[in-house]
Amino acid sequence: MKFFSFLESAVNSNSSLLCIGLDPIPSLMPLGITVLDFNKAIIDATADMVCAYKPNLAFYETEGERGWETLKQTIEYIPKNIPVIADAKRGDIGNTSQAYAKALFEGLGAHAVTVNPYLGMDSVEPFTNYCDKGVFILCLTSNQGADNFQKLTVKKDSVEMKLYEQVGMYAEQWNKNNNIGIVVGATHPSEMRSLRKAHPNMTFLVPGIGTQGGDIKSTMSSGLRTDGKGIIVNSSRQILYASNGPDFAKEAARIAKTLRNELNIYR
Amino acid sequence: MKFFSFLESAVNSNSSLLCIGLDPIPSLMPLGITVLDFNKAIIDATADMVCAYKPNLAFYETEGERGWETLKQTIEYIPKNIPVIADAKRGDIGNTSQAYAKALFEGLGAHAVTVNPYLGMDSVEPFTNYCDKGVFILCLTSNQGADNFQKLTVKKDSVEMKLYEQVGMYAEQWNKNNNIGIVVGATHPSEMRSLRKAHPNMTFLVPGIGTQGGDIKSTMSSGLRTDGKGIIVNSSRQILYASNGPDFAKEAARIAKTLRNELNIYR
Repeated sequence: MKFFSFLESAVNSNSSLLCIGLDPIPSLMPLGITVLDFNKAIIDATADMVCAYKPNLAFYETEGERGWETLKQTIEYIPKNIPVIADAKRGDIGNTSQAYAKALFEGLGAHAVTVNPYLGMDSVEPFTNYCDKGVFILCLTSNQGADNFQKLTVKKDSVEMKLYEQVGMYAEQWNKNNNIGIVVGATHPSEMRSLRKAHPNMTFLVPGIGTQGGDIKSTMSSGLRTDGKGIIVNSSRQILYASNGPDFAKEAARIAKTLRNELNIYR
Repeated sequence: MKFFSFLESAVNSNSSLLCIGLDPIPSLMPLGITVLDFNKAIIDATADMVCAYKPNLAFYETEGERGWETLKQTIEYIPKNIPVIADAKRGDIGNTSQAYAKALFEGLGAHAVTVNPYLGMDSVEPFTNYCDKGVFILCLTSNQGADNFQKLTVKKDSVEMKLYEQVGMYAEQWNKNNNIGIVVGATHPSEMRSLRKAHPNMTFLVPGIGTQGGDIKSTMSSGLRTDGKGIIVNSSRQILYASNGPDFAKEAARIAKTLRNELNIYR
């Protein structure tokens, strides 16, 4: 099945636009639990409330080969009706991006990935060539450093726009397999609104609510597609570390449910 | 020791500006050899001819946790007088870049990394905060896709320049710990010349000679610092896969020596 159809099935069956970022930080977890057991408990408690899980590879790579194994086991554990987005932000020259795509899609079994566009088309294509997989291109990220380059004014064929807008335009142009979405941080609601206008059908992966300060109401009013979908809102630390006691999974589920329902109010 | 002093020691002791990219592609190797044994043989044969080794993580991640272990063992095997640049092209929001920096510097023991600048200052800082480690920021890459974004004209405070030039300027500005270099592809000699003019002291990591079409003479005349250093020229496939017979290490050494000497002609 094509990734965006798969995603839509999960959105429908769980009535949810919520994605949980599976970003394990051992120091914030209950004492003595393994990362894999932590992830399994979170997944068990939340799998009927999410449209996707998004593990960020950085938090597994800190544990080296063991972390990579944990990540693989975590992805295998996720119920087959929920897509997994490997948040890897990779991007390299052609044959190297090809190796990354193989590692993430075939090795780890991810259904979608995040990709950094700085190296251009031939760095993105090896990912999008996997027709049934999804590719979210970093467009406007949620952090402050987004100002340094992404918000610069660029000139092309004497038209002026922001660099992130140019990335959005290329994302659209490169979307021959209908498997590209873009990453747009919740911390930029007005820019998200203009991106939605420019890309009425594209799916936005939205980090930045909760700990990073993005607001749900403005995110939804800015980014939602006219069909009440087309946006995946990620939350990680706010859910995962709602409690570090024995009730952590129950608390995670409670926060996830609240967020899921809050997102649905604005659909 | 600070990374750039470490690098300079290796440049001096081996009279070399050559970096070998340890990018294992099993299908190009002699039949039946393991990646680790292949890498060890290449290292044994070339360690007195290089100023650095640069494994690209993609080619290890394709093998999952086993690949990660091989990478770690490869780095451990490299003689202690030769710096290792983990070519990872990472970059994420602050706390996530922090995790990547920990994985690469502490977990793998790399002496330097490559970083993608698209997410801006707070994505780069967690790497540069490791004062004794080196950080090569992607500026102008060797692939064709460099045209899509890196060569766009950007406007800042009504000054116009190319995006990669803006990246170079920020790299200079962020270089408070004297541990930042930039990646400049050998396929752009005239742009390299202007970057050298703008950044007379910075170290350039230069991919793109050999298979990718970059030329040694023009690279050296464009990128060399006035002290005859300040440039690290990477070659990977041309050396690693010079032969796929039992003489592969000997052939790799032969090509590495030729390249090293050719680079030295123009110093």
